[in-house]
Amino acid sequence: MLRIRDRLEKIFSVTDVDCVIVMNKSPPVSSFFYITGLSGGLFEGCFAVAFRDRCVLLSAGLDYVKSDEIEVDNFKNSNDLKKKLQELTKACKKVGFDGIATSYSDYQKLRRLLRGKKLVDIGKNIVKCRFNKDDYEIEMIRRACRVVDRVFDKIIDDLKDGVKEKEMAIMIETLIKEHGADDKAFDSIVAFGKNSAIPHHVPGNRRLRRGDIVLLDFGARYKGYVSDITRSFVYGKADDRIKEMFDVVLRAQQIGRDTIKEGVKLEEPHNRVVRYINGTRFRGKFIHSLGHTIGLEVHDGYRLGKGCKEIFSNGVTFTIEPGVYLKSVGGIRIEDDFVFLNGRVKRLTHAPRFSEI
Amino acid sequence: MLRIRDRLEKIFSVTDVDCVIVMNKSPPVSSFFYITGLSGGLFEGCFAVAFRDRCVLLSAGLDYVKSDEIEVDNFKNSNDLKKKLQELTKACKKVGFDGIATSYSDYQKLRRLLRGKKLVDIGKNIVKCRFNKDDYEIEMIRRACRVVDRVFDKIIDDLKDGVKEKEMAIMIETLIKEHGADDKAFDSIVAFGKNSAIPHHVPGNRRLRRGDIVLLDFGARYKGYVSDITRSFVYGKADDRIKEMFDVVLRAQQIGRDTIKEGVKLEEPHNRVVRYINGTRFRGKFIHSLGHTIGLEVHDGYRLGKGCKEIFSNGVTFTIEPGVYLKSVGGIRIEDDFVFLNGRVKRLTHAPRFSEI
Repeated sequence: MLRIRDRLEKIFSVTDVDCVIVMNKSPPVSSFFYITGLSGGLFEGCFAVAFRDRCVLLSAGLDYVKSDEIEVDNFKNSNDLKKKLQELTKACKKVGFDGIATSYSDYQKLRRLLRGKKLVDIGKNIVKCRFNKDDYEIEMIRRACRVVDRVFDKIIDDLKDGVKEKEMAIMIETLIKEHGADDKAFDSIVAFGKNSAIPHHVPGNRRLRRGDIVLLDFGARYKGYVSDITRSFVYGKADDRIKEMFDVVLRAQQIGRDTIKEGVKLEEPHNRVVRYINGTRFRGKFIHSLGHTIGLEVHDGYRLGKGCKEIFSNGVTFTIEPGVYLKSVGGIRIEDDFVFLNGRVKRLTHAPRFSEI
Repeated sequence: MLRIRDRLEKIFSVTDVDCVIVMNKSPPVSSFFYITGLSGGLFEGCFAVAFRDRCVLLSAGLDYVKSDEIEVDNFKNSNDLKKKLQELTKACKKVGFDGIATSYSDYQKLRRLLRGKKLVDIGKNIVKCRFNKDDYEIEMIRRACRVVDRVFDKIIDDLKDGVKEKEMAIMIETLIKEHGADDKAFDSIVAFGKNSAIPHHVPGNRRLRRGDIVLLDFGARYKGYVSDITRSFVYGKADDRIKEMFDVVLRAQQIGRDTIKEGVKLEEPHNRVVRYINGTRFRGKFIHSLGHTIGLEVHDGYRLGKGCKEIFSNGVTFTIEPGVYLKSVGGIRIEDDFVFLNGRVKRLTHAPRFSEI
């Protein structure tokens, strides 16, 4: 079960502020949903004011609030909002705000609203608190993973000669919602043939032909939490070079996974995989980070990449997604979601990995 | 045709800076796409550096760039990025940044990257430049409007006893993409019965019954530009009260539209409509702004709302969306998109408005 109090305690134990104010916007601000525990709704222009023992939502009144854990107060206009914010924070000297989610201009607005108080950027602290997921969060991520597994299972039936990348992307995103997710987690990548060599390819009018590499990278959002999966395979027979790419990438994922132990830095599996791939004939063809944490955001704060000194610990959820990209052939990337739990790495996505279909 | 140079000239004519730096993120930053003219792709972590006569994209190399109008340079890592940024801006004393899109923490990063230079927040200036759309932009918005018209035409065939709000939302969003848009512009609102009284209702498991109000609010994104439409009607026979709500709201939209002339402030149609609705039996039941500008964002900078002193002028694109909300009955909102062009208001969305079906 979700308990907002636990989250607030966590935040206030690592920060030295009297309250925390997070404004929501469109697109939604993760820390707003983290401290209110709300799992849907727009809540554009609403403010969450959090104390060690309670959270107050100042709402514009356009949304329906379904929560026993927070107090709700509607404001009528910006003057009313200002009055309510000042009243709520009147005993506070230091006010925390999320400097990662708050724009420079909203920060200036906040300064005017709370004149005389000290504003403290606790953005990094909130990200840090979100790093280790609680049971509720892991369960939501697990469900988001279940959705993409099922979508993958369905979507391979829709592969046929002449289908466009764009059409496949539409099908994937429809299936994601039909399988119970609230939405896609991000714009799906569907790349055929050489297009798969562009890691961030945008699905276009390219039609599927026998012998093409098919790269599918998509994710689901469930009650705010995301999954993120990539599968790559040949539509038809894979030639030896592509088979070798596939084997190297799959092996790289295993090597990355095997590197992870309690206390290991997030950059270590990345560095290990770079060394491995650079020792194969695909030297220099792995051109991005090995992965990233997942949660309320697809990139939830940290990369499994060079320079990331955070360490694996209980409840960390992340992707491992090595890839090899050859401009003249295409790319192979294999991405799964994992949780580090009780000293062990558990895989959360289970769609099959095959090199040809 | 899109001409980046014209946009840059516009920006540099209203600001006093030597260059402008905009970093893109996920979700995408509108001003990044405005000054680069890119119409798709992720470009996460990429920087646009714009001068009066050219725009340079510093790319992380994960995206494919399709543009003759900008120069592209790939950076390898954050040190390389820093070097390239400093080299590009070495003759610049004042560097403009978008304080509305740049987070407080990215602003601090920018300060470190460009030590010794004066950073100037020109966020409001860029929004102001985007206020008056050029022909290319109006055409893209027109196309996005055409999509929602067609989707509405299709979706009314899918209304049937027992269909869930959620299911309708999925159908709408699939149709949006099948009709040539790149994506939905925002999460669709589908509200049946009393749920329609919540302006920002999130589609749920409520099933459609005869006599329900149906409120559909959705939009399409085409090459970055959006449309936004709302229709409300009864599934079955509308009773007299709902008919009256519908008539008042439709009349309110017409009154809003008729108020708009060259030089009129954006708040005027809103204030006029508030007075009109408060003179009917639905006094106090119109609880939001009359509309907002549309463009690269759904709320593209300005509201047709209290206090907005901007004036209607050539190329302004906006919604007019009065509504009346009764908790015990439901809500009626009618929203269309318009452009102010050559001294006249032209409607861009043409889906029929009817009170029952």
